[in-house]
Amino acid sequence: MRPSGRDLSDMRSVSIETGVTKHAEGSCLIKMGDTHVLCTATLEDRVPPFVKGSGLGWVTAEYGMLPRSTGSRMRREATAGKQGGRTVEIQRLIGRSLRAGVDRVALGERQITIDCDVIQADGGTRCASITGGWVALRLAVNKLMKTGAISTDPLTPVAAVSCGIYAGQPVLDLDYAEDSEAGVDGNFILRGDGQLIEVQMSAEGATFSRDQMNKLMDLAEAGVSQLVQAQLAACK
Amino acid sequence: MRPSGRDLSDMRSVSIETGVTKHAEGSCLIKMGDTHVLCTATLEDRVPPFVKGSGLGWVTAEYGMLPRSTGSRMRREATAGKQGGRTVEIQRLIGRSLRAGVDRVALGERQITIDCDVIQADGGTRCASITGGWVALRLAVNKLMKTGAISTDPLTPVAAVSCGIYAGQPVLDLDYAEDSEAGVDGNFILRGDGQLIEVQMSAEGATFSRDQMNKLMDLAEAGVSQLVQAQLAACK
Amino acid sequence: MRPSGRDLSDMRSVSIETGVTKHAEGSCLIKMGDTHVLCTATLEDRVPPFVKGSGLGWVTAEYGMLPRSTGSRMRREATAGKQGGRTVEIQRLIGRSLRAGVDRVALGERQITIDCDVIQADGGTRCASITGGWVALRLAVNKLMKTGAISTDPLTPVAAVSCGIYAGQPVLDLDYAEDSEAGVDGNFILRGDGQLIEVQMSAEGATFSRDQMNKLMDLAEAGVSQLVQAQLAACK
Amino acid sequence: MRPSGRDLSDMRSVSIETGVTKHAEGSCLIKMGDTHVLCTATLEDRVPPFVKGSGLGWVTAEYGMLPRSTGSRMRREATAGKQGGRTVEIQRLIGRSLRAGVDRVALGERQITIDCDVIQADGGTRCASITGGWVALRLAVNKLMKTGAISTDPLTPVAAVSCGIYAGQPVLDLDYAEDSEAGVDGNFILRGDGQLIEVQMSAEGATFSRDQMNKLMDLAEAGVSQLVQAQLAACK
Amino acid sequence: MRPSGRDLSDMRSVSIETGVTKHAEGSCLIKMGDTHVLCTATLEDRVPPFVKGSGLGWVTAEYGMLPRSTGSRMRREATAGKQGGRTVEIQRLIGRSLRAGVDRVALGERQITIDCDVIQADGGTRCASITGGWVALRLAVNKLMKTGAISTDPLTPVAAVSCGIYAGQPVLDLDYAEDSEAGVDGNFILRGDGQLIEVQMSAEGATFSRDQMNKLMDLAEAGVSQLVQAQLAACK
Amino acid sequence: MRPSGRDLSDMRSVSIETGVTKHAEGSCLIKMGDTHVLCTATLEDRVPPFVKGSGLGWVTAEYGMLPRSTGSRMRREATAGKQGGRTVEIQRLIGRSLRAGVDRVALGERQITIDCDVIQADGGTRCASITGGWVALRLAVNKLMKTGAISTDPLTPVAAVSCGIYAGQPVLDLDYAEDSEAGVDGNFILRGDGQLIEVQMSAEGATFSRDQMNKLMDLAEAGVSQLVQAQLAACK
Repeated sequence: MRPSGRDLSDMRSVSIETGVTKHAEGSCLIKMGDTHVLCTATLEDRVPPFVKGSGLGWVTAEYGMLPRSTGSRMRREATAGKQGGRTVEIQRLIGRSLRAGVDRVALGERQITIDCDVIQADGGTRCASITGGWVALRLAVNKLMKTGAISTDPLTPVAAVSCGIYAGQPVLDLDYAEDSEAGVDGNFILRGDGQLIEVQMSAEGATFSRDQMNKLMDLAEAGVSQLVQAQLAACK
Repeated sequence: MRPSGRDLSDMRSVSIETGVTKHAEGSCLIKMGDTHVLCTATLEDRVPPFVKGSGLGWVTAEYGMLPRSTGSRMRREATAGKQGGRTVEIQRLIGRSLRAGVDRVALGERQITIDCDVIQADGGTRCASITGGWVALRLAVNKLMKTGAISTDPLTPVAAVSCGIYAGQPVLDLDYAEDSEAGVDGNFILRGDGQLIEVQMSAEGATFSRDQMNKLMDLAEAGVSQLVQAQLAACK
Repeated sequence: MRPSGRDLSDMRSVSIETGVTKHAEGSCLIKMGDTHVLCTATLEDRVPPFVKGSGLGWVTAEYGMLPRSTGSRMRREATAGKQGGRTVEIQRLIGRSLRAGVDRVALGERQITIDCDVIQADGGTRCASITGGWVALRLAVNKLMKTGAISTDPLTPVAAVSCGIYAGQPVLDLDYAEDSEAGVDGNFILRGDGQLIEVQMSAEGATFSRDQMNKLMDLAEAGVSQLVQAQLAACK
Repeated sequence: MRPSGRDLSDMRSVSIETGVTKHAEGSCLIKMGDTHVLCTATLEDRVPPFVKGSGLGWVTAEYGMLPRSTGSRMRREATAGKQGGRTVEIQRLIGRSLRAGVDRVALGERQITIDCDVIQADGGTRCASITGGWVALRLAVNKLMKTGAISTDPLTPVAAVSCGIYAGQPVLDLDYAEDSEAGVDGNFILRGDGQLIEVQMSAEGATFSRDQMNKLMDLAEAGVSQLVQAQLAACK
Repeated sequence: MRPSGRDLSDMRSVSIETGVTKHAEGSCLIKMGDTHVLCTATLEDRVPPFVKGSGLGWVTAEYGMLPRSTGSRMRREATAGKQGGRTVEIQRLIGRSLRAGVDRVALGERQITIDCDVIQADGGTRCASITGGWVALRLAVNKLMKTGAISTDPLTPVAAVSCGIYAGQPVLDLDYAEDSEAGVDGNFILRGDGQLIEVQMSAEGATFSRDQMNKLMDLAEAGVSQLVQAQLAACK
Repeated sequence: MRPSGRDLSDMRSVSIETGVTKHAEGSCLIKMGDTHVLCTATLEDRVPPFVKGSGLGWVTAEYGMLPRSTGSRMRREATAGKQGGRTVEIQRLIGRSLRAGVDRVALGERQITIDCDVIQADGGTRCASITGGWVALRLAVNKLMKTGAISTDPLTPVAAVSCGIYAGQPVLDLDYAEDSEAGVDGNFILRGDGQLIEVQMSAEGATFSRDQMNKLMDLAEAGVSQLVQAQLAACK
């Protein structure tokens, strides 16, 4: 029934390749099927003004899509003169989600910026960005721990997956063909221990019931659990 | 236990005054306690390019805060040269939510723009904007029906309320004092018949469990039910 | 002869309601007939760089119109990415006019920002902003005097009215119907003691003679005198 | 008493050199003492959307200052990313003033753009721009009349001069040394026949009385009369 | 003598992988040592206004760097609100250079946009962008030829290499370590037949003689010849 | 054969008038035939952040064109909201070229900004800007030397000329008629002693051979030599 032939509760194949750029303190290329996102972590001693002097760390994120990461070419945001509303919304979500897995006291007064750049898009780029972004973050923090700059590990795994109602059925990990037709679309960000960080469910044409909402949550919990395994395997 | 002395499941007093500006096709001033939002509906025959020729209607929304609607003065976005990320995120949510209560075929190829301007802010401005915005939309559509431009009513009630976990307890309709301290913050947009349109729950410092999520949903359902009564009463 | 049926030298009814928002140090809603402007005063210890260290106070103003304050919806300036030329011109005038009624030494090194936001427009919004803005300023300064932060009252009343030549006749306080047809349009800002602060007369289609200019000045002096009474009554 | 040694009612020496650029349909370099402004007129068949199809002509103006036209270098507005409030205010005034001397029916549906660029500034640049701008306009219209594109002359002379109260005395044509110290500053735009187009008087530190206002008007009338002679002589 | 241990006339190892994104009509990832650029070609029927109706084709280019493609993180241009001067200069060069290898009549009235996004930078990104951009262009044109949309091949190979004077010696293909220390830096864009398209030599600290200029040209000719081999091999 | 009737190796007549504005520390109006550029030098003690504390001087440049300096009116960049790509490219070239003639140690920690504003354009404005800009720079530095602020002269002459291939022939100093038809267009910036600072040759429709490149270089060397004579004569 799904365009890709997957079962309702099947995720796309996940691959996370680390160390893909030589400059960044942490980096990976995450592939969720045909969705490919390059995630890098930049470590700086400089923190934003509102954190200065607090002794707390800060994690923030930026998101972008290459102009031809999509089926038809999108205008480059640098040319348009500003980031679009969708971009701003997504990068705020990535930053907020990753911070929920960070012990900011243990991180200490430093900033880590996660850049998520979509090389190829096929649905679910924001979730892939969070999942891959956490890997880049993990690798950068590992460096801090190796040098002794940090003694207590400040990180708990954070991963994200989309679920939605496609052709009347709850499905896990929507690709573009499904996403563009789905009646309900949700993003679920969870910690490795199953605690919820952010839940966003949104009607796109069809509304949904509490019962449907619960089924999507069940799918999401199973999906994130697999993603956390992939993250930990990639960081070994 | 709540700063305002309200019970956990108490909403603030709601007041919706209609017809507050002479130019708009529909308007109201909604007050959720000390949060005051002016909502206007503008009816136009012109539709956006992506709708043109489809025969379908379009509902969109814009959101703003007066500079001194808040405790300390905010910079005017027109001076800053752009709408901030939070503003863009909110106005996209308002538009999306209201459209979920509109039969776009019945509305016909015309556009209604809902402007939500916060006169005074005390938490929950996006939810008040949706609830008040629907009233402005209702009044504008009423005009279309009176003149016979529309024969089938295209509208179902849509209302929104915030819930969150404050001091460890699930509470309904957070005011600013609670919102700024809440560990979890959620916005729930529902139709009058109880169907869900959008659910956003977000950890702010504390994560949350599925059990807590369900308690917030219960509060939200009760809250929206009261708000829909207030909307219908105001539009009589 | 006037669309509203007023006599040539009749002003619209004036109402000034104070204390309309809980956050601002001073606030009022001024109504000149159907023109409604919300004015707030924000008090800050921080002054602009060019005043710093001088011991002098500073008063500045910003002006905006809600998108549907007018007959047809105007584009939101925050969306357009900048304040239009008309907006900039008006807010510079408001700030300049109010400063002419302030003893900046007596005010001391602090800044008061007056925000004038047009809720509903029917001509004469800049004059209503100045008249209402002064009331907000007065109320904020009263607070400073009550707490003893200021000992000498730094304020003299300032008010503004428009006059113009409509259908060949000099008339006081143009509403939108007149303003859009007037051959000559003028704004007159005076102090309570009758001294002139700013005079702007502008041909819109017809030029004017010195004799006509004098007649407009006579009307303006009478109008401002009534406005100052209304200001003082509102601040009691 | 005046820094330049001029009498109270003396204007600076005026020089208007025409034909200073080979591309423009009309051009002049106007010098009011040390204030030098290059004015060009561009003739186009294309008119703005709000004029299209009306059969009426349009005259508009833009204003700029070279970065080092002033005592200390100003930031280039193209670098700053927008025209400042003062620039916008001035160019709107120039356009409005020149239009008051144009019979738009006789001009026919075409647009003339007047560019006024300040090469060297020493006070009174907006008045010099209007006076010089009219000369450029005159020369461009002359071309239209020579080719027979226009049969009725659409132009009446328009000129502008500043007056102010300096050291307590009304003076004509303020230079920078006076302008920066003046208590009251006014710009007076008149037609060649003495009719008023725009009067702007503004308190800068000191307010003014109606009697003073009248004295400034007297000076302005005399000044403009001389400027119109210079304009006509230059266009011969 | 060179930081990389290369001989003066050695280029870095070149690799060109094609077909790296599924959406673009042509794509490659070019690696010049540690400089990695993703190049995509987008084919559109729509042409810019200045080409419309001419029957001629158009090739244009855009360039960007991922924020952490460099040693320290660069600000994202979309956040800065505009493309920097360097970016604009480079993308104009890429477009101009590629057009010099295109028979625009044979291409027909269609547009091809080449996007060059730097994934990892180690000097010479503009030259790599041109060389890789041509490959993407070649692949997109191949599609047009396969479908019969184009009958005559409009393309001639175009490639680019940098040369400079490092530690007093002319060297080929500067990497970042050399580029940042070079006294003279040049970019040489040639056609496959040896004709020159663009030569840019620029003193950075040291000026240069005609004799040195000729030596750089010799190196460039040899380098481009190797690059053209690599391009042709990749497109087979 | 050339539209102007000049010989292939003839430059246009050059005139450099100094001291043309009273405010700038150095200024000239350079005329290369009908190309007229006003160049001013502004001397400041303030240096950019990246130079601060280094003891080194800084020379930078900005470039602009008056809207009607060209055959048809160009949009004012301040109105467009940003400097175009061509402007940015040119002003970076001017600054880079002039710095190649400056001993930054001898200049000492101060900044000189060269503004080049094109009054009338007829081809070759960037070269005229460099040649005239150097004269303004020279005059400003002379002031520093007269006051003893600088003891060692930090300047070597820098001048620029364009050459190109027009109607198949290498020609010196292209005017607009030639520039718009030239197959190859080059800009050559040299020091007074013949050392090369920057060479840019660009195919515009036709490519070029090394032999042609050498002929253009020969013309450029001869042209710059004459320009340096004119610069030195003007600065006496």
